[in-house]
Amino acid sequence: MTSDFSFKNPVFAQFAFYAGIVILKTLAMSLATAYHRITKKVFINPEDNPGGKVTPNDPDVERIRRCHLNDLENVVPFVLIGGLYVLTGPSAHAAALHFRIFAAARIFHTISYLFALPQPCRALSFVVGYMATASMAVNVIRSGVM
Amino acid sequence: MTSDFSFKNPVFAQFAFYAGIVILKTLAMSLATAYHRITKKVFINPEDNPGGKVTPNDPDVERIRRCHLNDLENVVPFVLIGGLYVLTGPSAHAAALHFRIFAAARIFHTISYLFALPQPCRALSFVVGYMATASMAVNVIRSGVM
Amino acid sequence: MTSDFSFKNPVFAQFAFYAGIVILKTLAMSLATAYHRITKKVFINPEDNPGGKVTPNDPDVERIRRCHLNDLENVVPFVLIGGLYVLTGPSAHAAALHFRIFAAARIFHTISYLFALPQPCRALSFVVGYMATASMAVNVIRSGVM
Repeated sequence: MTSDFSFKNPVFAQFAFYAGIVILKTLAMSLATAYHRITKKVFINPEDNPGGKVTPNDPDVERIRRCHLNDLENVVPFVLIGGLYVLTGPSAHAAALHFRIFAAARIFHTISYLFALPQPCRALSFVVGYMATASMAVNVIRSGVM
Repeated sequence: MTSDFSFKNPVFAQFAFYAGIVILKTLAMSLATAYHRITKKVFINPEDNPGGKVTPNDPDVERIRRCHLNDLENVVPFVLIGGLYVLTGPSAHAAALHFRIFAAARIFHTISYLFALPQPCRALSFVVGYMATASMAVNVIRSGVM
Repeated sequence: MTSDFSFKNPVFAQFAFYAGIVILKTLAMSLATAYHRITKKVFINPEDNPGGKVTPNDPDVERIRRCHLNDLENVVPFVLIGGLYVLTGPSAHAAALHFRIFAAARIFHTISYLFALPQPCRALSFVVGYMATASMAVNVIRSGVM
């Protein structure tokens, strides 16, 4: 079983694909924030709205900001730990399961957050993604002590 | 001296171990936030408390949130820079020193923050962890220009 | 064309150099925040100012905090995606272009934010850095599916 950091390793190629997807999804939150700030004219910096006022707590913008921060708190650890996990030499099946479950959970988390779906939609998608990253972290730590 | 990205490289294995520890510690802050939100019923999204109210600025939750954000600001740069630093071919001794000091400093930082220990507990633990990452970053930049 | 994760690969060495620079720049925001909190005595935690008061919304500190968070939202994805992009085997020229444009854009973004330069300074520097990361992410995802 190869377990190196290269696109020739199918586990790495899978990881890179899903890491790319979830990072692009995270980056998209910036565009959603900018769209709402511009269309609703709710700016946070005086230089963004010369002669106008600053609106610090718009509920729509704050909801997107919380969703974005939640991505930073979860997607970034996934990519960091996922890269190390690839090198622990997991089976292609186990690795694919972790990556796909995480990506699906985070996409559903974003939908749940932005459209304010009734709970436990958001809570469940958060927990599922969290478990995928935590499971990989335990594997990395165990490989690190041996 | 091997300096590759693989668990066969003892410096990498050490890095992966400590990176796993500090990322799990960072992820644990989400659970601490959820625990306080649920037990104190201080929810930030209307859908989390149907029929109830939203409580944006609970001091306990805000303290954990600040601690979590401080982790994102420091643990994530440590893991990113640490991975590159492994490839600069540091001595096992120097590398272990950086990783252990950082991990110990951040664990002490979390304790200082969550239990509001008198200063300079938190300030010192912050500075010590910061110096470990900055020292590795300087090594990475120097290796990058050569 | 070598495309491995090692300082012997010139594309990787370039990446490590610019990643080190933008991470150090991000870390510097913590020092800027601490400097303003201490010199203006605007503390957020009671234990930081015993016997004094807590000042949650100082405009100068909040501006630096927003700039710092914007770095986390953009610099961290750049480093994560940039590392994977190095392994897609880009030409040295294309890679250098992505890394340099991103680093220059983020330095100009920080200057625009901290000194409140008139728009579109900050908006443009944000968009340019964002495009560099997004372009690399698309390359990574395409290499991952093949």
